[in-house]
Amino acid sequence: MERKGFLTKPMLERVPEYLEYLNEAIKHGIQNVSATNISLALGYGEVLVRKDLAGISGAGKPKTGYEIKPLIARLESILSPDGGVTAVVIGAGKLGKAVFDYNGFGKYGIKITAAFDVDSKILSLSSTSKPIFPLSELNSYCLYHSVNIAIITVPSSAAQEVCDIAVSSGVCAIWNFAPIKLKVPKSIQLRNENLASSLALLAAQSTKKDSLTHVVKNSP
Amino acid sequence: MERKGFLTKPMLERVPEYLEYLNEAIKHGIQNVSATNISLALGYGEVLVRKDLAGISGAGKPKTGYEIKPLIARLESILSPDGGVTAVVIGAGKLGKAVFDYNGFGKYGIKITAAFDVDSKILSLSSTSKPIFPLSELNSYCLYHSVNIAIITVPSSAAQEVCDIAVSSGVCAIWNFAPIKLKVPKSIQLRNENLASSLALLAAQSTKKDSLTHVVKNSP
Repeated sequence: MERKGFLTKPMLERVPEYLEYLNEAIKHGIQNVSATNISLALGYGEVLVRKDLAGISGAGKPKTGYEIKPLIARLESILSPDGGVTAVVIGAGKLGKAVFDYNGFGKYGIKITAAFDVDSKILSLSSTSKPIFPLSELNSYCLYHSVNIAIITVPSSAAQEVCDIAVSSGVCAIWNFAPIKLKVPKSIQLRNENLASSLALLAAQSTKKDSLTHVVKNSP
Repeated sequence: MERKGFLTKPMLERVPEYLEYLNEAIKHGIQNVSATNISLALGYGEVLVRKDLAGISGAGKPKTGYEIKPLIARLESILSPDGGVTAVVIGAGKLGKAVFDYNGFGKYGIKITAAFDVDSKILSLSSTSKPIFPLSELNSYCLYHSVNIAIITVPSSAAQEVCDIAVSSGVCAIWNFAPIKLKVPKSIQLRNENLASSLALLAAQSTKKDSLTHVVKNSP
């Protein structure tokens, strides 16, 4: 059975919810849970929950369903298999700082431990206690701390350069917010987050629906 | 011919590049362009460019290809069919301000004209000259300025409440950054931007590949 593709973004978004429900159930002395229980509690379709759990932990047992403790362990191992993932932010401008200080990553086992910038004026200005270092220290920091992911929030003109430094520093993945196509080796996972085009697509799909239909209909 | 689905995010990301190329070509006195020209100049596959242009503007003419001026007009009408789209940001914390002050939306014909917040201390503190108003003025502002999109960057606990206000103020679309499922009427386009799960998926797809395979293989 091919299960490699079971890990999708919508599924990953449900994992913290599953964990919250299961941890709550454990507190109440419950030891087994069925896909039906979870489906009813969280409002997801039963087929969907059953598929998620089958991908994560194989089929449940008839009548008893899943033992909660091993299921929790498996869910946690998805979010944080090796004691967590370490990321750094490159570019401590507004967006970089917003990502750096965003506190929603922890529940996925991801720690953003440092930010880097060329502008010495903004160094150490994070409103949390996390450090902002000069860009020149990126390479040694990543190597020393085995950083997994570099989050790029510099202007487009500087993005490829800092991306190359990050790649040479041993990161496995790049999360790029600069609206530019980056070149990375095949072994590196690259995710582009183009906020402007996300918003443009939403705009086009909603307010502009009529105009677009018009444009398309009138095409030669 | 069914062309409704031609508008995808990857395609929308290419539209500004097409426009830049075509405007440059016009400046050099060029009047016609082929999918091959664009493909070679921008490094996209020819089949892809041909498909984009067919969706946007019908088939090009044999040998002469597309007239540039009407093609530019069509591309611009996709990004800004009715003189542009107006959006507001609700929640002027770090992420809200980063989105508010991000200057990449303009090339898609989108203007973020104001931000709103409950915290009176941060009112008027945008580093650009754009205003931050009290949340109590959201409704009247949206109605008066015919705002199309509300961008929600408040904490999860407040997200549904501000979403409801935005919907009642006549917006057509919600771009939600709060990690919570919002309820909106069917007529409203909703896009959820869960940054944490995006990063978690990237992490899981890269550094954790081996561990995950292990987890899945050992499933009962």
